[in-house]
Amino acid sequence: MTLIIVTGMPGAGSSTVIKESLQLRKEGESEGIEFIPRNYGDIMFEAARERGLVEKRDELRKLPGEKQREIQMLACNKIAEWRESMNLIIDTHCTIKTSAGYLPGLPEYVLRELKPDQFVLIEADPDEILERRKRDKTRERDVENRTSIEEHQFMNRAISMAYACLTGASVKIIENHDGALSKAASEFFALLKMLSKS
Amino acid sequence: MTLIIVTGMPGAGSSTVIKESLQLRKEGESEGIEFIPRNYGDIMFEAARERGLVEKRDELRKLPGEKQREIQMLACNKIAEWRESMNLIIDTHCTIKTSAGYLPGLPEYVLRELKPDQFVLIEADPDEILERRKRDKTRERDVENRTSIEEHQFMNRAISMAYACLTGASVKIIENHDGALSKAASEFFALLKMLSKS
Amino acid sequence: MTLIIVTGMPGAGSSTVIKESLQLRKEGESEGIEFIPRNYGDIMFEAARERGLVEKRDELRKLPGEKQREIQMLACNKIAEWRESMNLIIDTHCTIKTSAGYLPGLPEYVLRELKPDQFVLIEADPDEILERRKRDKTRERDVENRTSIEEHQFMNRAISMAYACLTGASVKIIENHDGALSKAASEFFALLKMLSKS
Repeated sequence: MTLIIVTGMPGAGSSTVIKESLQLRKEGESEGIEFIPRNYGDIMFEAARERGLVEKRDELRKLPGEKQREIQMLACNKIAEWRESMNLIIDTHCTIKTSAGYLPGLPEYVLRELKPDQFVLIEADPDEILERRKRDKTRERDVENRTSIEEHQFMNRAISMAYACLTGASVKIIENHDGALSKAASEFFALLKMLSKS
Repeated sequence: MTLIIVTGMPGAGSSTVIKESLQLRKEGESEGIEFIPRNYGDIMFEAARERGLVEKRDELRKLPGEKQREIQMLACNKIAEWRESMNLIIDTHCTIKTSAGYLPGLPEYVLRELKPDQFVLIEADPDEILERRKRDKTRERDVENRTSIEEHQFMNRAISMAYACLTGASVKIIENHDGALSKAASEFFALLKMLSKS
Repeated sequence: MTLIIVTGMPGAGSSTVIKESLQLRKEGESEGIEFIPRNYGDIMFEAARERGLVEKRDELRKLPGEKQREIQMLACNKIAEWRESMNLIIDTHCTIKTSAGYLPGLPEYVLRELKPDQFVLIEADPDEILERRKRDKTRERDVENRTSIEEHQFMNRAISMAYACLTGASVKIIENHDGALSKAASEFFALLKMLSKS
Protein backbone atom coordinates (compact mmCIF):
# COMPACT_ATOMS: atom_id res chain seq x y z
CA MET A 1 0.00 0.00 0.00
CA THR A 2 1.02 3.60 -0.57
CA LEU A 3 1.54 6.24 2.11
CA ILE A 4 1.66 9.89 1.05
CA ILE A 5 2.56 12.49 3.63
CA VAL A 6 1.21 15.94 2.83
CA THR A 7 2.52 18.86 4.85
CA GLY A 8 1.74 22.52 4.99
CA MET A 9 2.12 25.19 7.61
CA PRO A 10 -1.09 26.62 9.11
CA GLY A 11 -2.66 28.69 6.35
CA ALA A 12 -0.98 26.91 3.45
CA GLY A 13 -4.17 24.96 2.89
CA SER A 14 -2.99 21.37 2.86
CA SER A 15 -6.32 19.99 4.11
CA THR A 16 -8.25 22.02 1.53
CA VAL A 17 -6.07 20.79 -1.33
CA ILE A 18 -6.49 17.18 -0.23
CA LYS A 19 -10.28 17.55 0.11
CA GLU A 20 -10.60 19.26 -3.28
CA SER A 21 -8.51 16.64 -5.06
CA LEU A 22 -10.51 13.78 -3.56
CA GLN A 23 -13.58 15.61 -4.89
CA LEU A 24 -11.98 15.49 -8.35
CA ARG A 25 -11.65 11.77 -7.93
CA LYS A 26 -15.36 11.37 -7.22
CA GLU A 27 -16.32 13.48 -10.21
CA GLY A 28 -14.03 11.95 -12.76
CA GLU A 29 -11.94 8.94 -13.51
CA SER A 30 -11.29 7.22 -10.23
CA GLU A 31 -10.43 3.70 -11.33
CA GLY A 32 -8.07 2.28 -8.76
CA ILE A 33 -7.38 5.61 -7.06
CA GLU A 34 -8.39 4.89 -3.49
CA PHE A 35 -6.76 6.96 -0.79
CA ILE A 36 -8.04 7.54 2.74
CA PRO A 37 -7.15 10.97 4.09
CA ARG A 38 -6.25 11.33 7.76
CA ASN A 39 -5.00 14.27 9.77
CA TYR A 40 -2.02 13.55 12.04
CA GLY A 41 -3.01 16.36 14.42
CA ASP A 42 -6.55 14.96 14.77
CA ILE A 43 -5.17 11.56 15.68
CA MET A 44 -2.78 13.15 18.18
CA PHE A 45 -5.53 15.32 19.62
CA GLU A 46 -7.80 12.32 20.17
CA ALA A 47 -4.99 10.46 21.92
CA ALA A 48 -4.14 13.50 24.09
CA ARG A 49 -7.78 14.20 24.96
CA GLU A 50 -8.37 10.58 25.93
CA ARG A 51 -5.50 10.97 28.39
CA GLY A 52 -6.96 14.23 29.75
CA LEU A 53 -3.92 16.25 28.67
CA VAL A 54 -5.74 18.82 26.57
CA GLU A 55 -9.24 20.11 25.91
CA LYS A 56 -8.69 22.23 22.82
CA ARG A 57 -6.62 21.26 19.84
CA ASP A 58 -4.33 24.28 19.87
CA GLU A 59 -3.19 23.34 23.36
CA LEU A 60 -1.25 20.43 21.84
CA ARG A 61 1.48 22.82 20.69
CA LYS A 62 1.87 24.15 24.22
CA LEU A 63 2.55 20.82 25.88
CA PRO A 64 6.14 20.12 26.94
CA GLY A 65 8.26 18.64 24.14
CA GLU A 66 8.48 15.28 25.84
CA LYS A 67 4.70 14.93 26.11
CA GLN A 68 4.28 15.99 22.51
CA ARG A 69 6.72 13.32 21.40
CA GLU A 70 4.87 10.67 23.39
CA ILE A 71 1.55 11.55 21.76
CA GLN A 72 3.21 11.82 18.35
CA MET A 73 4.36 8.21 18.75
CA LEU A 74 0.92 6.95 19.76
CA ALA A 75 -0.54 8.51 16.62
CA CYS A 76 2.33 7.14 14.57
CA ASN A 77 1.61 3.60 15.70
CA LYS A 78 -2.05 3.91 14.69
CA ILE A 79 -1.09 5.12 11.21
CA ALA A 80 1.49 2.37 10.77
CA GLU A 81 -1.29 -0.12 11.55
CA TRP A 82 -3.79 1.38 9.05
CA ARG A 83 -1.04 1.61 6.46
CA GLU A 84 -0.91 -2.17 6.21
CA SER A 85 -4.34 -2.39 4.63
CA MET A 86 -5.07 0.91 2.87
CA ASN A 87 -3.62 3.70 0.74
CA LEU A 88 -3.28 6.67 3.05
CA ILE A 89 -2.86 10.41 2.73
CA ILE A 90 -1.57 11.78 6.02
CA ASP A 91 -2.02 15.52 6.47
CA THR A 92 0.53 16.91 8.92
CA HIS A 93 3.30 19.47 9.52
CA CYS A 94 6.96 19.35 8.57
CA THR A 95 7.68 21.22 11.78
CA ILE A 96 5.44 22.53 14.55
CA LYS A 97 6.28 25.97 15.91
CA THR A 98 6.37 25.73 19.70
CA SER A 99 7.87 27.88 22.44
CA ALA A 100 10.92 25.60 22.23
CA GLY A 101 11.27 26.34 18.50
CA TYR A 102 10.71 24.13 15.48
CA LEU A 103 9.64 20.67 16.63
CA PRO A 104 10.12 18.09 13.87
CA GLY A 105 6.76 16.64 12.80
CA LEU A 106 8.33 13.48 11.46
CA PRO A 107 11.44 12.64 13.47
CA GLU A 108 13.49 9.62 12.51
CA TYR A 109 11.72 7.22 14.86
CA VAL A 110 8.38 8.18 13.29
CA LEU A 111 9.72 7.84 9.73
CA ARG A 112 11.18 4.39 10.46
CA GLU A 113 7.74 3.28 11.62
CA LEU A 114 5.70 4.90 8.84
CA LYS A 115 7.98 4.27 5.83
CA PRO A 116 6.30 6.92 3.66
CA ASP A 117 6.47 6.61 -0.14
CA GLN A 118 6.04 10.28 -1.00
CA PHE A 119 6.18 13.71 0.61
CA VAL A 120 4.17 16.68 -0.60
CA LEU A 121 4.72 20.25 0.59
CA ILE A 122 1.76 22.56 0.11
CA GLU A 123 3.07 26.12 0.01
CA ALA A 124 1.77 29.63 -0.56
CA ASP A 125 3.25 33.11 -0.46
CA PRO A 126 3.88 34.44 3.06
CA ASP A 127 1.37 37.26 2.48
CA GLU A 128 -1.32 34.81 1.41
CA ILE A 129 -0.64 32.73 4.51
CA LEU A 130 -0.88 35.74 6.82
CA GLU A 131 -4.19 36.81 5.24
CA ARG A 132 -5.67 33.33 5.48
CA ARG A 133 -4.73 33.09 9.13
CA LYS A 134 -6.37 36.42 9.86
CA ARG A 135 -9.59 35.22 8.26
CA ASP A 136 -9.59 31.92 10.14
CA LYS A 137 -11.03 32.71 13.56
CA THR A 138 -11.47 29.08 14.60
CA ARG A 139 -7.91 28.66 15.80
CA GLU A 140 -5.74 30.43 18.31
CA ARG A 141 -2.55 31.35 16.58
CA ASP A 142 0.63 33.19 17.51
CA VAL A 143 1.11 36.58 15.94
CA GLU A 144 3.50 36.26 13.04
CA ASN A 145 4.88 38.42 10.31
CA ARG A 146 6.23 37.91 6.80
CA THR A 147 9.76 37.20 8.03
CA SER A 148 8.73 34.59 10.56
CA ILE A 149 6.58 32.83 7.94
CA GLU A 150 9.51 32.81 5.52
CA GLU A 151 11.76 31.41 8.23
CA HIS A 152 9.23 28.68 9.01
CA GLN A 153 8.92 27.79 5.31
CA PHE A 154 12.72 27.60 5.06
CA MET A 155 12.91 25.22 8.01
CA ASN A 156 10.08 23.10 6.56
CA ARG A 157 11.82 22.72 3.21
CA ALA A 158 15.13 21.96 4.89
CA ILE A 159 13.73 19.24 7.14
CA SER A 160 11.71 17.76 4.28
CA MET A 161 15.02 17.01 2.58
CA ALA A 162 16.25 15.25 5.71
CA TYR A 163 13.02 13.21 5.57
CA ALA A 164 13.70 12.44 1.90
CA CYS A 165 17.25 11.37 2.66
CA LEU A 166 16.20 8.99 5.43
CA THR A 167 13.34 7.38 3.50
CA GLY A 168 14.38 7.63 -0.16
CA ALA A 169 10.98 9.19 -0.90
CA SER A 170 10.61 12.23 -3.17
CA VAL A 171 9.47 15.67 -2.07
CA LYS A 172 6.95 17.40 -4.33
CA ILE A 173 6.21 21.09 -3.79
CA ILE A 174 2.70 22.15 -4.79
CA GLU A 175 1.85 25.84 -4.70
CA ASN A 176 -1.63 26.67 -3.46
CA HIS A 177 -2.16 30.31 -4.38
CA ASP A 178 -5.29 32.37 -3.77
CA GLY A 179 -7.85 31.72 -6.48
CA ALA A 180 -5.91 28.75 -7.83
CA LEU A 181 -7.08 25.94 -5.57
CA SER A 182 -8.25 23.83 -8.50
CA LYS A 183 -4.77 24.02 -10.05
CA ALA A 184 -3.20 22.80 -6.81
CA ALA A 185 -5.83 20.06 -6.45
CA SER A 186 -5.25 18.90 -10.03
CA GLU A 187 -1.52 18.67 -9.47
CA PHE A 188 -2.08 16.62 -6.35
CA PHE A 189 -4.62 14.43 -8.12
CA ALA A 190 -2.14 13.79 -10.96
CA LEU A 191 0.33 12.61 -8.34
CA LEU A 192 -2.27 10.27 -6.81
CA LYS A 193 -2.92 8.79 -10.26
CA MET A 194 0.78 8.31 -10.89
CA LEU A 195 1.37 6.66 -7.51
CA SER A 196 -1.67 4.41 -8.00
CA LYS A 197 -0.21 3.08 -11.25
CA SER A 198 3.29 2.47 -9.97
CA MET B 1 40.79 4.73 -0.44
CA THR B 2 39.00 8.05 -0.86
CA LEU B 3 35.52 8.59 -2.30
CA ILE B 4 34.54 12.09 -3.38
CA ILE B 5 30.97 12.72 -4.45
CA VAL B 6 30.58 15.67 -6.79
CA THR B 7 27.08 16.94 -7.46
CA GLY B 8 25.64 19.60 -9.69
CA MET B 9 22.25 20.15 -11.25
CA PRO B 10 22.04 19.86 -15.04
CA GLY B 11 23.85 22.89 -16.43
CA ALA B 12 26.02 23.51 -13.35
CA GLY B 13 28.90 21.82 -15.14
CA SER B 14 30.03 19.22 -12.65
CA SER B 15 31.36 16.84 -15.32
CA THR B 16 33.25 19.66 -17.04
CA VAL B 17 34.88 20.79 -13.80
CA ILE B 18 35.98 17.23 -13.01
CA LYS B 19 37.39 16.74 -16.52
CA GLU B 20 39.23 20.04 -16.47
CA SER B 21 40.76 19.41 -13.07
CA LEU B 22 41.99 15.95 -14.06
CA GLN B 23 43.58 17.69 -17.07
CA LEU B 24 45.41 19.95 -14.59
CA ARG B 25 46.70 16.84 -12.89
CA LYS B 26 48.18 15.51 -16.15
CA GLU B 27 49.85 18.80 -16.94
CA GLY B 28 51.36 19.52 -13.57
CA GLU B 29 52.32 17.96 -10.31
CA SER B 30 50.39 14.72 -10.03
CA GLU B 31 52.44 12.77 -7.51
CA GLY B 32 50.06 10.50 -5.68
CA ILE B 33 46.93 12.19 -6.96
CA GLU B 34 45.10 9.33 -8.61
CA PHE B 35 41.35 9.56 -8.87
CA ILE B 36 39.10 7.67 -11.27
CA PRO B 37 36.04 9.68 -12.32
CA ARG B 38 32.73 7.90 -12.80
CA ASN B 39 29.25 9.16 -13.54
CA TYR B 40 26.48 7.72 -11.35
CA GLY B 41 23.89 8.32 -14.07
CA ASP B 42 25.99 6.44 -16.63
CA ILE B 43 26.28 3.47 -14.32
CA MET B 44 22.52 3.58 -13.65
CA PHE B 45 21.77 3.95 -17.38
CA GLU B 46 23.87 0.90 -18.23
CA ALA B 47 22.11 -1.14 -15.57
CA ALA B 48 18.66 0.05 -16.75
CA ARG B 49 19.45 -0.55 -20.44
CA GLU B 50 20.74 -4.03 -19.72
CA ARG B 51 17.34 -4.74 -18.16
CA GLY B 52 15.52 -3.26 -21.15
CA LEU B 53 13.88 -0.55 -19.05
CA VAL B 54 15.10 2.44 -21.08
CA GLU B 55 16.68 3.29 -24.41
CA LYS B 56 17.70 6.89 -23.89
CA ARG B 57 19.33 8.27 -20.80
CA ASP B 58 16.77 10.98 -20.11
CA GLU B 59 14.09 8.30 -19.79
CA LEU B 60 15.65 7.28 -16.46
CA ARG B 61 14.05 10.28 -14.75
CA LYS B 62 10.65 9.25 -16.03
CA LEU B 63 10.65 5.75 -14.56
CA PRO B 64 8.47 5.18 -11.50
CA GLY B 65 10.21 6.08 -8.23
CA GLU B 66 10.41 2.47 -7.16
CA LYS B 67 12.21 1.39 -10.36
CA GLN B 68 14.59 4.34 -10.07
CA ARG B 69 15.47 3.33 -6.53
CA GLU B 70 16.13 -0.25 -7.62
CA ILE B 71 18.54 0.87 -10.36
CA GLN B 72 20.11 3.40 -8.02
CA MET B 73 20.95 0.55 -5.67
CA LEU B 74 22.48 -1.62 -8.40
CA ALA B 75 24.78 1.26 -9.38
CA CYS B 76 25.54 1.89 -5.72
CA ASN B 77 26.73 -1.67 -5.22
CA LYS B 78 29.12 -1.41 -8.18
CA ILE B 79 30.62 1.80 -6.82
CA ALA B 80 31.00 0.32 -3.34
CA GLU B 81 32.94 -2.52 -4.93
CA TRP B 82 35.29 -0.25 -6.95
CA ARG B 83 35.78 1.94 -3.90
CA GLU B 84 37.67 -0.85 -2.16
CA SER B 85 40.60 -0.62 -4.57
CA MET B 86 40.68 2.91 -6.03
CA ASN B 87 40.21 6.60 -5.27
CA LEU B 88 36.96 7.57 -6.90
CA ILE B 89 35.23 10.75 -7.99
CA ILE B 90 31.53 10.05 -8.44
CA ASP B 91 29.65 12.62 -10.49
CA THR B 92 25.95 12.65 -9.59
CA HIS B 93 22.98 14.74 -8.44
CA CYS B 94 21.97 15.80 -4.95
CA THR B 95 18.37 15.46 -6.05
CA ILE B 96 16.78 14.45 -9.36
CA LYS B 97 13.75 16.47 -10.45
CA THR B 98 11.02 14.01 -11.41
CA SER B 99 7.27 14.28 -11.83
CA ALA B 100 7.02 13.13 -8.19
CA GLY B 101 9.25 16.00 -7.08
CA TYR B 102 12.81 16.00 -5.74
CA LEU B 103 14.09 12.43 -5.61
CA PRO B 104 17.11 12.16 -3.30
CA GLY B 105 20.19 11.13 -5.29
CA LEU B 106 21.92 9.71 -2.23
CA PRO B 107 19.32 8.34 0.18
CA GLU B 108 20.48 6.91 3.48
CA TYR B 109 20.73 3.32 2.24
CA VAL B 110 23.04 4.46 -0.58
CA LEU B 111 25.18 6.57 1.79
CA ARG B 112 25.57 3.68 4.24
CA GLU B 113 26.89 1.56 1.41
CA LEU B 114 29.18 4.15 -0.20
CA LYS B 115 30.61 5.85 2.94
CA PRO B 116 31.76 8.96 1.05
CA ASP B 117 34.63 11.05 2.46
CA GLN B 118 33.74 14.34 0.85
CA PHE B 119 30.88 16.08 -0.93
CA VAL B 120 31.34 18.81 -3.51
CA LEU B 121 28.52 20.96 -4.85
CA ILE B 122 29.21 22.57 -8.21
CA GLU B 123 26.99 25.63 -8.51
CA ALA B 124 26.38 28.49 -10.90
CA ASP B 125 23.95 31.40 -11.08
CA PRO B 126 20.42 30.43 -12.14
CA ASP B 127 20.73 32.57 -15.28
CA GLU B 128 23.97 30.86 -16.27
CA ILE B 129 22.33 27.47 -15.77
CA LEU B 130 19.33 28.42 -17.90
CA GLU B 131 21.58 29.66 -20.72
CA ARG B 132 23.77 26.55 -20.64
CA ARG B 133 20.71 24.31 -20.82
CA LYS B 134 19.41 26.21 -23.83
CA ARG B 135 22.72 25.71 -25.63
CA ASP B 136 22.89 21.98 -24.83
CA LYS B 137 20.68 20.30 -27.42
CA THR B 138 21.84 16.75 -26.60
CA ARG B 139 19.45 16.30 -23.71
CA GLU B 140 15.71 16.51 -23.33
CA ARG B 141 14.99 18.81 -20.47
CA ASP B 142 11.91 20.20 -18.77
CA VAL B 143 11.23 23.88 -19.27
CA GLU B 144 12.39 25.78 -16.22
CA ASN B 145 12.70 29.34 -15.08
CA ARG B 146 14.89 31.27 -12.66
CA THR B 147 12.62 30.54 -9.71
CA SER B 148 12.48 26.81 -10.28
CA ILE B 149 16.27 26.66 -10.63
CA GLU B 150 16.65 28.58 -7.36
CA GLU B 151 14.23 26.21 -5.66
CA HIS B 152 16.16 23.20 -6.96
CA GLN B 153 19.47 24.68 -5.76
CA PHE B 154 17.91 25.30 -2.33
CA MET B 155 16.75 21.70 -2.08
CA ASN B 156 20.18 20.46 -3.20
CA ARG B 157 21.99 22.46 -0.54
CA ALA B 158 19.51 21.39 2.11
CA ILE B 159 19.80 17.69 1.35
CA SER B 160 23.58 17.92 1.07
CA MET B 161 23.61 18.90 4.75
CA ALA B 162 21.52 15.83 5.60
CA TYR B 163 24.14 13.80 3.68
CA ALA B 164 26.89 15.52 5.69
CA CYS B 165 25.12 14.80 8.96
CA LEU B 166 24.70 11.10 8.19
CA THR B 167 28.27 10.55 6.97
CA GLY B 168 30.35 13.12 8.87
CA ALA B 169 31.80 14.25 5.51
CA SER B 170 32.23 17.92 4.63
CA VAL B 171 30.34 19.76 1.91
CA LYS B 172 32.43 22.06 -0.29
CA ILE B 173 30.64 24.51 -2.60
CA ILE B 174 32.58 25.37 -5.77
CA GLU B 175 31.18 28.06 -8.05
CA ASN B 176 31.55 27.38 -11.75
CA HIS B 177 30.78 30.70 -13.43
CA ASP B 178 30.86 31.43 -17.13
CA GLY B 179 34.39 32.15 -18.27
CA ALA B 180 35.86 30.95 -14.96
CA LEU B 181 36.08 27.20 -15.50
CA SER B 182 39.79 27.13 -14.77
CA LYS B 183 39.16 28.78 -11.38
CA ALA B 184 36.60 26.11 -10.49
CA ALA B 185 38.89 23.35 -11.74
CA SER B 186 41.82 24.69 -9.70
CA GLU B 187 39.69 24.78 -6.56
CA PHE B 188 38.62 21.21 -7.13
CA PHE B 189 42.20 20.16 -7.90
CA ALA B 190 43.39 21.77 -4.65
CA LEU B 191 40.82 19.67 -2.82
CA LEU B 192 42.05 16.50 -4.55
CA LYS B 193 45.60 17.32 -3.47
CA MET B 194 44.51 17.93 0.08
CA LEU B 195 42.52 14.70 0.26
CA SER B 196 45.42 12.74 -1.29
CA LYS B 197 47.72 13.92 1.50
CA SER B 198 45.40 13.22 4.40
CA MET C 1 19.22 15.26 32.87
CA THR C 2 18.82 17.84 30.10
CA LEU C 3 21.32 18.56 27.33
CA ILE C 4 20.94 21.79 25.37
CA ILE C 5 23.15 22.34 22.35
CA VAL C 6 23.67 26.00 21.52
CA THR C 7 25.25 26.84 18.19
CA GLY C 8 26.34 30.03 16.53
CA MET C 9 28.85 30.86 13.85
CA PRO C 10 31.90 32.88 14.92
CA GLY C 11 30.62 36.37 15.68
CA ALA C 12 27.03 35.35 16.36
CA GLY C 13 27.76 35.57 20.06
CA SER C 14 26.59 32.20 21.35
CA SER C 15 29.05 32.19 24.28
CA THR C 16 28.08 35.71 25.26
CA VAL C 17 24.37 34.90 25.23
CA ILE C 18 24.92 31.83 27.40
CA LYS C 19 27.08 33.77 29.88
CA GLU C 20 24.60 36.63 30.10
CA SER C 21 21.65 34.33 30.66
CA LEU C 22 23.42 32.42 33.43
CA GLN C 23 24.04 35.84 35.00
CA LEU C 24 20.28 36.41 34.91
CA ARG C 25 19.88 33.17 36.78
CA LYS C 26 22.22 34.31 39.55
CA GLU C 27 20.43 37.64 39.90
CA GLY C 28 16.87 36.39 39.91
CA GLU C 29 14.71 33.38 40.40
CA SER C 30 16.97 30.40 39.95
CA GLU C 31 15.06 27.68 41.78
CA GLY C 32 15.94 24.41 40.09
CA ILE C 33 17.59 26.01 37.07
CA GLU C 34 21.03 24.47 37.19
CA PHE C 35 22.91 24.21 33.93
CA ILE C 36 26.65 23.81 33.48
CA PRO C 37 27.96 25.54 30.33
CA ARG C 38 30.75 23.88 28.35
CA ASN C 39 32.36 24.76 25.06
CA TYR C 40 32.76 21.88 22.60
CA GLY C 41 35.74 23.57 20.94
CA ASP C 42 37.51 23.97 24.30
CA ILE C 43 37.07 20.29 25.07
CA MET C 44 38.32 19.39 21.57
CA PHE C 45 41.25 21.80 21.89
CA GLU C 46 42.32 20.27 25.20
CA ALA C 47 42.18 16.80 23.70
CA ALA C 48 44.14 17.88 20.62
CA ARG C 49 46.77 19.76 22.64
CA GLU C 50 47.26 16.81 24.97
CA ARG C 51 48.07 14.77 21.86
CA GLY C 52 50.47 17.44 20.58
CA LEU C 53 48.42 18.03 17.44
CA VAL C 54 47.92 21.78 17.87
CA GLU C 55 49.24 24.71 19.89
CA LYS C 56 46.66 27.36 19.13
CA ARG C 57 42.93 26.84 19.06
CA ASP C 58 42.40 28.13 15.53
CA GLU C 59 44.71 25.41 14.23
CA LEU C 60 41.96 22.88 14.99
CA ARG C 61 40.07 23.94 11.87
CA LYS C 62 43.13 23.33 9.73
CA LEU C 63 43.68 19.72 10.73
CA PRO C 64 42.74 17.06 8.18
CA GLY C 65 39.09 16.08 8.32
CA GLU C 66 39.88 12.65 9.67
CA LYS C 67 41.88 14.02 12.62
CA GLN C 68 39.13 16.53 13.36
CA ARG C 69 36.57 13.76 13.47
CA GLU C 70 38.74 11.72 15.84
CA ILE C 71 39.09 14.63 18.26
CA GLN C 72 35.41 15.46 17.87
CA MET C 73 34.61 11.95 19.07
CA LEU C 74 36.90 12.15 22.09
CA ALA C 75 35.16 15.35 23.18
CA CYS C 76 31.81 13.78 22.49
CA ASN C 77 32.54 10.87 24.82
CA LYS C 78 33.46 13.25 27.66
CA ILE C 79 30.22 15.18 27.24
CA ALA C 80 28.16 11.99 27.11
CA GLU C 81 29.74 11.04 30.44
CA TRP C 82 29.04 14.39 32.14
CA ARG C 83 25.52 14.35 30.73
CA GLU C 84 24.63 11.44 33.00
CA SER C 85 24.88 13.53 36.14
CA MET C 86 24.25 17.18 35.22
CA ASN C 87 22.18 19.54 33.09
CA LEU C 88 24.50 20.76 30.36
CA ILE C 89 24.63 23.63 27.90
CA ILE C 90 27.07 22.76 25.13
CA ASP C 91 28.29 25.70 23.08
CA THR C 92 29.38 24.60 19.61
CA HIS C 93 28.99 25.06 15.84
CA CYS C 94 26.39 23.61 13.49
CA THR C 95 29.11 23.43 10.85
CA ILE C 96 32.78 24.38 10.89
CA LYS C 97 34.10 26.12 7.79
CA THR C 98 37.29 24.34 6.73
CA SER C 99 39.28 24.19 3.50
CA ALA C 100 37.26 21.07 2.68
CA GLY C 101 34.00 23.01 3.09
CA TYR C 102 31.32 22.77 5.75
CA LEU C 103 32.27 20.11 8.28
CA PRO C 104 29.23 18.99 10.31
CA GLY C 105 29.70 19.88 13.97
CA LEU C 106 27.27 17.21 15.14
CA PRO C 107 27.37 14.26 12.73
CA GLU C 108 25.06 11.34 13.31
CA TYR C 109 27.55 9.31 15.37
CA VAL C 110 27.96 12.27 17.74
CA LEU C 111 24.20 12.85 18.02
CA ARG C 112 23.56 9.17 18.80
CA GLU C 113 26.03 9.43 21.66
CA LEU C 114 24.88 12.79 23.04
CA LYS C 115 21.09 12.47 22.63
CA PRO C 116 20.47 16.23 22.93
CA ASP C 117 17.06 17.46 24.13
CA GLN C 118 17.12 20.87 22.51
CA PHE C 119 19.01 22.84 19.86
CA VAL C 120 19.40 26.60 19.92
CA LEU C 121 20.74 28.64 17.01
CA ILE C 122 22.12 32.03 17.95
CA GLU C 123 21.98 34.24 14.87
CA ALA C 124 22.69 37.84 13.89
CA ASP C 125 22.64 39.83 10.66
CA PRO C 126 25.57 39.13 8.33
CA ASP C 127 26.73 42.75 8.66
CA GLU C 128 26.71 42.53 12.45
CA ILE C 129 28.72 39.32 12.29
CA LEU C 130 31.31 40.85 9.95
CA GLU C 131 31.71 43.89 12.23
CA ARG C 132 32.05 41.77 15.37
CA ARG C 133 34.72 39.63 13.70
CA LYS C 134 36.68 42.70 12.69
CA ARG C 135 36.64 43.95 16.29
CA ASP C 136 37.73 40.58 17.72
CA LYS C 137 41.51 40.46 17.25
CA THR C 138 42.03 37.40 19.47
CA ARG C 139 41.27 34.92 16.73
CA GLU C 140 42.68 34.23 13.30
CA ARG C 141 39.82 34.20 10.88
CA ASP C 142 39.39 33.76 7.15
CA VAL C 143 38.34 36.83 5.21
CA GLU C 144 34.64 36.66 4.53
CA ASN C 145 31.96 38.80 3.01
CA ARG C 146 28.22 39.21 3.38
CA THR C 147 27.47 36.49 0.82
CA SER C 148 29.73 33.89 2.41
CA ILE C 149 28.22 34.60 5.84
CA GLU C 150 24.73 34.19 4.40
CA GLU C 151 25.75 30.93 2.77
CA HIS C 152 27.18 29.67 6.06
CA GLN C 153 24.02 30.64 7.93
CA PHE C 154 21.93 28.81 5.30
CA MET C 155 24.00 25.65 5.72
CA ASN C 156 23.75 25.90 9.51
CA ARG C 157 19.98 26.17 9.45
CA ALA C 158 19.72 23.33 6.96
CA ILE C 159 21.89 20.95 8.95
CA SER C 160 20.16 21.90 12.21
CA MET C 161 16.97 20.45 10.72
CA ALA C 162 18.79 17.21 9.93
CA TYR C 163 19.90 17.20 13.59
CA ALA C 164 16.28 17.77 14.66
CA CYS C 165 15.06 14.97 12.44
CA LEU C 166 17.56 12.46 13.83
CA THR C 167 17.01 13.35 17.50
CA GLY C 168 13.42 14.55 17.67
CA ALA C 169 14.67 17.67 19.47
CA SER C 170 13.38 21.15 18.61
CA VAL C 171 15.43 23.92 17.04
CA LYS C 172 14.98 27.38 18.55
CA ILE C 173 16.40 30.40 16.71
CA ILE C 174 17.39 33.29 18.98
CA GLU C 175 18.48 36.54 17.37
CA ASN C 176 21.35 38.32 19.07
CA HIS C 177 21.40 41.77 17.54
CA ASP C 178 23.76 44.60 18.43
CA GLY C 179 22.55 46.40 21.53
CA ALA C 180 19.97 43.72 22.29
CA LEU C 181 22.03 41.14 24.17
CA SER C 182 19.73 41.24 27.18
CA LYS C 183 16.75 40.41 24.97
CA ALA C 184 18.60 37.37 23.56
CA ALA C 185 19.72 36.33 27.04
CA SER C 186 16.17 36.61 28.39
CA GLU C 187 14.83 34.45 25.60
CA PHE C 188 17.44 31.83 26.30
CA PHE C 189 16.78 32.04 30.04
CA ALA C 190 13.06 31.54 29.43
CA LEU C 191 13.93 28.38 27.53
CA LEU C 192 16.10 27.15 30.41
CA LYS C 193 13.21 27.72 32.81
CA MET C 194 10.82 25.87 30.54
CA LEU C 195 13.17 22.91 30.10
CA SER C 196 13.82 22.79 33.86
CA LYS C 197 10.11 22.39 34.52
CA SER C 198 9.42 19.74 31.92
